[in-house]
Amino acid sequence: MALSSPAGAAYSRTEVERVVRDVLLRHLGGAAGGVGPRTKPNPLVVNISARHVHLSPEHLEILFGKGAQLEVQKDLYQSGYFAAKQTVAVVGPRRRMLPEVRVLGPCRGASQVELAFTDGISLGIDLPVRISGDHRETPGCILVGPQGVVELNAGVIRAMRHVHMGPEDLAYFGVNDGEKMHLRIESPGCTTVLEDLQVRAGKDIKLEVHVDTDEGNAVNLEKATKVELLKAEPCACKQK
Amino acid sequence: MALSSPAGAAYSRTEVERVVRDVLLRHLGGAAGGVGPRTKPNPLVVNISARHVHLSPEHLEILFGKGAQLEVQKDLYQSGYFAAKQTVAVVGPRRRMLPEVRVLGPCRGASQVELAFTDGISLGIDLPVRISGDHRETPGCILVGPQGVVELNAGVIRAMRHVHMGPEDLAYFGVNDGEKMHLRIESPGCTTVLEDLQVRAGKDIKLEVHVDTDEGNAVNLEKATKVELLKAEPCACKQK
Repeated sequence: MALSSPAGAAYSRTEVERVVRDVLLRHLGGAAGGVGPRTKPNPLVVNISARHVHLSPEHLEILFGKGAQLEVQKDLYQSGYFAAKQTVAVVGPRRRMLPEVRVLGPCRGASQVELAFTDGISLGIDLPVRISGDHRETPGCILVGPQGVVELNAGVIRAMRHVHMGPEDLAYFGVNDGEKMHLRIESPGCTTVLEDLQVRAGKDIKLEVHVDTDEGNAVNLEKATKVELLKAEPCACKQK
Repeated sequence: MALSSPAGAAYSRTEVERVVRDVLLRHLGGAAGGVGPRTKPNPLVVNISARHVHLSPEHLEILFGKGAQLEVQKDLYQSGYFAAKQTVAVVGPRRRMLPEVRVLGPCRGASQVELAFTDGISLGIDLPVRISGDHRETPGCILVGPQGVVELNAGVIRAMRHVHMGPEDLAYFGVNDGEKMHLRIESPGCTTVLEDLQVRAGKDIKLEVHVDTDEGNAVNLEKATKVELLKAEPCACKQK
């Protein structure tokens, strides 16, 4: 999920990232793939998902104390999800640390740490690109909270770019859960097509693209003038 | 130019960036655009150009003392260009600093600071995307060296993605100086097409793409399995 409101000292990188992250491209054009019903799609929202942690109830209690509950700092765009007041430190194998990584709620069955590739370089973790929840052959890390420490054996990933979609949007774009689409972002001097944008379908889910901070910065998302969600099809550039 | 060898403390971010930066995709396929002579193009090299500074001779002397000369730390891929032993501190308007930004040589007519968008966030500078040398309406910064300080009124940019080409490559790809091409990078889970890749033609220039650290990290360049330089043409995805 997108992390929309981490704490941060005035002028800190975290604070600035928050501003970038809050950029919602709600009113930019979402072109249709031309397949499926001709009804207008839901507005296309592109959010930058900054580094964050999901915790299992067991790990929440170890890190924050017996009986601890996640407290809502800010609701996310998808109903029922939120950035918690709680943060944890993420320590990598080189004993370098990201001191304040936001926890997102609600709790999940298995803890997971989602980092940008830049974070992985800084921590010394070779991040695999994975869809949330796929922890096969993923690295672990140490999580440090105010009341305890958890050693994760797996679950540290770079989240694959993805687009959350409800049934209406699936029909409109003519795609299925798990299919890969393209997101084209027009931005002055750095227009980019992000392929490998995986469809994650769900009932009662709003249309929302999640990219990470590296991707958001590469395309200067804040300055983007147009975003388009495109069904992946052979490109003329490659057909010669 | 690509910065290939900055100094950095063991395990520092700078050091790790150096490793990433040194990744040369020399042996990955460079597909032809199909226009122009049918001779095989030169090998396609994609380099990450980390943040760096170009100095005028005057500024070099102010920062490093009367009579100072740039010393070669490491030659770059393009003949005659090098990463210097010298570094400067770049101070932004929020009085935040990047303490060791590599100087590239040789000196130029006008000083220029090339940063990634992530650096701009950290410094509080709203970076325009520009081709090297285009300083119209660009922000400035303070440069601090061991012997003096320079206040730049302009010249701080995010370098636009570009590809250096000699006459043979221009003919092979059927493009002209200043034209924009596409660079498609296949990388596990994060395949990306970088549009707005500007052709910078020159005699005795080797074929070389420069992207910045944000772009390199967004596509996980180190893990890329294929890179293709494509003539920009209407895409099938958009023709419907």
